Amino acid sequence: MEPAIPDHLITARTRHPRVPADYEPPYPSFMARHGPSVKTLVMAYFGVQFRASDGAAAKGPLAAIAASFTAEDGPGHWDRAAYTDEQGFSNVISIAYWDHTASFERWFSTYGTAWSGDDTADARLGFFTEILKPSVERYETLFSAPDRAEGVAVIAEGMSGMVREHAYWGGMRDRIPLSQTDAMEPTGAPRIEEEGGLLRVIPHDNICLIRSGQDWTDTDPEERRMYLEEVEPVLKAGMDFLRDEGLSCGCFANRYMRVVDEAGRPVEKSFGMSWWKSLAQLERWSEFHPTHVAIFGAAMKYLSRLGPAAKLRLYHEVTVATADQQFFEYRNCHPKTGMLKAG
Amino acid sequence: MEPAIPDHLITARTRHPRVPADYEPPYPSFMARHGPSVKTLVMAYFGVQFRASDGAAAKGPLAAIAASFTAEDGPGHWDRAAYTDEQGFSNVISIAYWDHTASFERWFSTYGTAWSGDDTADARLGFFTEILKPSVERYETLFSAPDRAEGVAVIAEGMSGMVREHAYWGGMRDRIPLSQTDAMEPTGAPRIEEEGGLLRVIPHDNICLIRSGQDWTDTDPEERRMYLEEVEPVLKAGMDFLRDEGLSCGCFANRYMRVVDEAGRPVEKSFGMSWWKSLAQLERWSEFHPTHVAIFGAAMKYLSRLGPAAKLRLYHEVTVATADQQFFEYRNCHPKTGMLKAG
Repeated sequence: MEPAIPDHLITARTRHPRVPADYEPPYPSFMARHGPSVKTLVMAYFGVQFRASDGAAAKGPLAAIAASFTAEDGPGHWDRAAYTDEQGFSNVISIAYWDHTASFERWFSTYGTAWSGDDTADARLGFFTEILKPSVERYETLFSAPDRAEGVAVIAEGMSGMVREHAYWGGMRDRIPLSQTDAMEPTGAPRIEEEGGLLRVIPHDNICLIRSGQDWTDTDPEERRMYLEEVEPVLKAGMDFLRDEGLSCGCFANRYMRVVDEAGRPVEKSFGMSWWKSLAQLERWSEFHPTHVAIFGAAMKYLSRLGPAAKLRLYHEVTVATADQQFFEYRNCHPKTGMLKAG
Repeated sequence: MEPAIPDHLITARTRHPRVPADYEPPYPSFMARHGPSVKTLVMAYFGVQFRASDGAAAKGPLAAIAASFTAEDGPGHWDRAAYTDEQGFSNVISIAYWDHTASFERWFSTYGTAWSGDDTADARLGFFTEILKPSVERYETLFSAPDRAEGVAVIAEGMSGMVREHAYWGGMRDRIPLSQTDAMEPTGAPRIEEEGGLLRVIPHDNICLIRSGQDWTDTDPEERRMYLEEVEPVLKAGMDFLRDEGLSCGCFANRYMRVVDEAGRPVEKSFGMSWWKSLAQLERWSEFHPTHVAIFGAAMKYLSRLGPAAKLRLYHEVTVATADQQFFEYRNCHPKTGMLKAG
């Protein structure tokens, strides 16, 4: 058992963790571990939006950005996911991760800035770019198994052993190193600026992003049936609530996405990705909103029935970013796209 | 909306509450309010234990203690509850509350010390006395409605307005004034001493007691059916778990009791009463144990279906006491009785 916060990020506390020193979690969980030289991470979401009938038009930009990821200074890892949003548009997002800001900035100035396009872009397509560049003190991960990294964890040095601070409400906060000294309360509110057809969201301090994933690749038929019939519909109902009514509880936007391979075919992995006004508001929804209480109850029932035999894999990554660690721009997207709802 | 901790108990904080200053609970709750002159409360549980067939033998002691409560320096309020324990014994507990230690001590030396009896007592009966005398900084209450006090709240000056610190995990702790400066971690472990057939439990610091009640008196037939068929069985399963396997998660003893009138007839009120190694362990069970997650889920579903029309009343009182604010003694009780399990 090891503490969630690695040695090199431990500071003199002014705030207490939620559990006493003798706390022991009832089941194992693991975290991504970066080497001490890693100071900042980059999580970049490049989205394209289109009517399903215009799918062919998106192929060029999707191939181009995939190619750019293999160029010099490209990301250490990227993946891609798709979903149909509340306006009926298809959205495909290429998600790329760096652990070195300078490499990212070089790559971005060469390839990334062009993603959102200009007014010569194909009018059938909308484009958006959503980027966080948190210092490592401002994020955490959690994995149900240590042997298959996802998302930002793929570029980590490796996985931790079993960590202590999980399986209680507040563990998410306690795993973020900055929680040792900072409540991470939001200051200000996001606003939108337009410049030549490009909408930029000017963010506020301490916005929160969660990517929370499920991987049922390894489940046998009976477990798969249980997941898809008993858990997934409850998860989807919660995701739909956040998408449609999330603003009522501090969630600016939620995308419940299916991971796809390079050919665009769905694989047996999904994740919810949501933008929150603050970590506290994400905590409140998770802990007390009927839609998440139902998700948590269904997951608990599932996992306690299967025990360690469960082959379902769960993970998440949670970031709380300062205003200057954020970047959002949107072109030709409908007004309910991502952080545009926050304006 | 008012803060849970009243003005006269606010101190300079060294520990933070779990929610930010702009937190607003999603539904109303209320707390008992004592006048500033009240420094200490007394919660005294006087139990008698017997085989169901020996019920007649218990009538004398039950009548005697009821009479003693009306004597000078008697409690400001008392009630009585019954249950059949895991060994098949009937237990009837008379629960009395004082808000003035000196009155209690005078009453106790005259009437209370005799309760546990001596070796001349009726061999068909077991007796136990469990008392907490917390300073007001060490306890909190919560009520779903402000117009019917129960338990210790009956001797309070009145009820608060709507309080802020509830409807999130950690609210219980945040409502206890001592949480402003103290983690209330347990030190030591209880042990048992015998003296002439009387077993005394020598407690540890920061033991935790919760009395958590339900009152379905005012429900109409359909709500009553929902409560008794959909919620109560789930509650009972959690109560049975704590009774039978509670030691595995820090619960020394749990009694799921039915309130009875002076003639011993059950009324439409029940409560769980449990002794915990620490507040933290009560928090952990409440928040993550499958049995309480199920209770919470059933209650959430029930209350969100009924909304403000719900006539079910819920309340609790939670105390964290120092070793010298506790008193436990048992005579002729079976070894699974109350705090005897902690030895």
